[in-house]
Amino acid sequence: MGYPDTFEGFMVQSQDDWTNFKKQEFKPKKFQERDIDIEIECCGVCGSDVHTISGGWGGAPMPLCVGHEVIGKAVKVGDGVKTVKVGDRVGVGAQIWACLECKPCKTDNENYCPNKIDTYGAPYPEEMGGVIAQGGYASHIRAHEYFTFKIPDNIPSEEAAPMMCAGLTTYSPLVRAGVGPGKKVAIVGVGGLGMHAIMWANALGAEVYVLSHSPDKEKAAKDLGAKEFISTVDKDWAKPWAFTFNFMLNTADATHQFDLAAYLGTLAVNGQMHHVGLPDKPLPELKAQMFAPNGCSMGGSHIGSRPEMFAMLKLASEKKLKPIIETIPVSEDGCKKAVLGVHNNEVRYRYTLTDFNKAFPNR
Amino acid sequence: MGYPDTFEGFMVQSQDDWTNFKKQEFKPKKFQERDIDIEIECCGVCGSDVHTISGGWGGAPMPLCVGHEVIGKAVKVGDGVKTVKVGDRVGVGAQIWACLECKPCKTDNENYCPNKIDTYGAPYPEEMGGVIAQGGYASHIRAHEYFTFKIPDNIPSEEAAPMMCAGLTTYSPLVRAGVGPGKKVAIVGVGGLGMHAIMWANALGAEVYVLSHSPDKEKAAKDLGAKEFISTVDKDWAKPWAFTFNFMLNTADATHQFDLAAYLGTLAVNGQMHHVGLPDKPLPELKAQMFAPNGCSMGGSHIGSRPEMFAMLKLASEKKLKPIIETIPVSEDGCKKAVLGVHNNEVRYRYTLTDFNKAFPNR
Repeated sequence: MGYPDTFEGFMVQSQDDWTNFKKQEFKPKKFQERDIDIEIECCGVCGSDVHTISGGWGGAPMPLCVGHEVIGKAVKVGDGVKTVKVGDRVGVGAQIWACLECKPCKTDNENYCPNKIDTYGAPYPEEMGGVIAQGGYASHIRAHEYFTFKIPDNIPSEEAAPMMCAGLTTYSPLVRAGVGPGKKVAIVGVGGLGMHAIMWANALGAEVYVLSHSPDKEKAAKDLGAKEFISTVDKDWAKPWAFTFNFMLNTADATHQFDLAAYLGTLAVNGQMHHVGLPDKPLPELKAQMFAPNGCSMGGSHIGSRPEMFAMLKLASEKKLKPIIETIPVSEDGCKKAVLGVHNNEVRYRYTLTDFNKAFPNR
Repeated sequence: MGYPDTFEGFMVQSQDDWTNFKKQEFKPKKFQERDIDIEIECCGVCGSDVHTISGGWGGAPMPLCVGHEVIGKAVKVGDGVKTVKVGDRVGVGAQIWACLECKPCKTDNENYCPNKIDTYGAPYPEEMGGVIAQGGYASHIRAHEYFTFKIPDNIPSEEAAPMMCAGLTTYSPLVRAGVGPGKKVAIVGVGGLGMHAIMWANALGAEVYVLSHSPDKEKAAKDLGAKEFISTVDKDWAKPWAFTFNFMLNTADATHQFDLAAYLGTLAVNGQMHHVGLPDKPLPELKAQMFAPNGCSMGGSHIGSRPEMFAMLKLASEKKLKPIIETIPVSEDGCKKAVLGVHNNEVRYRYTLTDFNKAFPNR
């Protein structure tokens, strides 16, 4: 078999052996009228990939091909597709389908559709093929048009890739919180998510403060647009910043070790600490009292909407924003190296898997 | 001694014996130019009073006179007082002082002033007398003008009293969240706080849904303005309400027993669950993931601002809103009965201590 009946991908067989990738065939969903087949050019390596294959978020169907920061070329479009043509360079993020009929979907909140399908690891219903959705460490991906996004010409593919998940996941909460001129924004953590958050918040006109327990990331944070770098290694780091930040975007994975009261105390009155990292471990113990000193809140979000994806890409294109990435040629070894680098916090600051033409010579 | 050198109050001597009130003298703060002395007419009995004297919130200076829902008559005003005259009927809530110079104070957020002084149990600095602030189960209270509020003529004193804390504490977060026409608001718990929240949210034009584990409170909830009463006793109570409420005000004291994911799941996209009850126990375990299905948040607040107090009193006066209260004549026994009734959740829905002229015949 082969395309279009089967795709090939680098797949993990078991959460007990999650760094062991095997190149193998899998069956895509049924091709439907609003579907687009994409020949993949590159794919970002997201923390979610590691949480999923390593079991940090619980069980996952195996074998599994992860990857939800996909850039490639449309090679086939369904009869109902209006927004993409064969040959277009497009991206796919962490969501591959939604009902487009429920209240969230009808209010540009399809990222909160209760029937949404994640790009990998989620079961497609029987009428769509009954398969498990497989991600972008692969030769191809089949995506619904609504979750397929044309990429502006001046953004290189390997830089556009991580924007598909890490970019949108940070852009959406920033704009929904009204981040812009006159606002002081704290970004916690400088990784794949944090890097994008700094870049967006600065481009949106806010004053950006980076909170990190890795002092060696200061230069990168400032290069990306941070006004100040605040090391949270110092015991009393929070004190000078009481009542300061209008919004705090927490991208860290080590939130369970945080002194949350200290972080919350740096928020301006009615400010919010917003989580986009989804660590394996629960948050530290909270009391309702911890919100009282400044009337603050703690929230979270899940990726973003289609209009937000386009607005983000426009911002990146117009302001020529460049995430800091490292490329790794995709292969069984390359995938292993990438997920270990993310797991061990060695990546600076996002891996993009590349050279898909070499890995999949027969497509 | 006696007024103005000393006031008299019903005071608890020890957290180990917190239902035992003794009438005794205490020394008020130094009288300063913006201070007002108030001869107390009645005082609401707030959950805070019970948390404080029983030790649920930790230690408290003893002996202590609690009570921060105070209505009375101004009998002396300092030379710098501009907004109150001798003879005015005024109220005092849960805050008695703020610096009025910091950023929160200068932005109508004096309820978040880091130097604020609570109405009882807080130490006054040396230059203000160096005493512990004492509350309203007393003959008099000495309050800064900024925290003293003229009461509209058509609100009876015993109904105005609980508005000073429970009223403002619920009014402020509702208006800050933009509660009004077109919004669906959930009020969790029908007690002193919940009763006011239902009344305000309805008067502000929102659709009000009451969530309670006490089905016998349905009639009261509907009398106060609830459109629907949702019993949280039923295991699957939350399912029909997924993605519904724009804002949820949690006034319950039993939040540690909540299935928080169920409550959060009833919020509309980007809705907030907001805590104003401050239970002794921590919140149930939270994961950042719990905010992801609808991009919700969890917050809290601390009373409200002076402009919000006046707006609330105007709303209550214009719409003739009436909280449901029970009166208890103030005395050593009356105070005991009141705090036990609150502690045992027997109150329907707020006690106001009255008959202060009988308890303090010599003032």
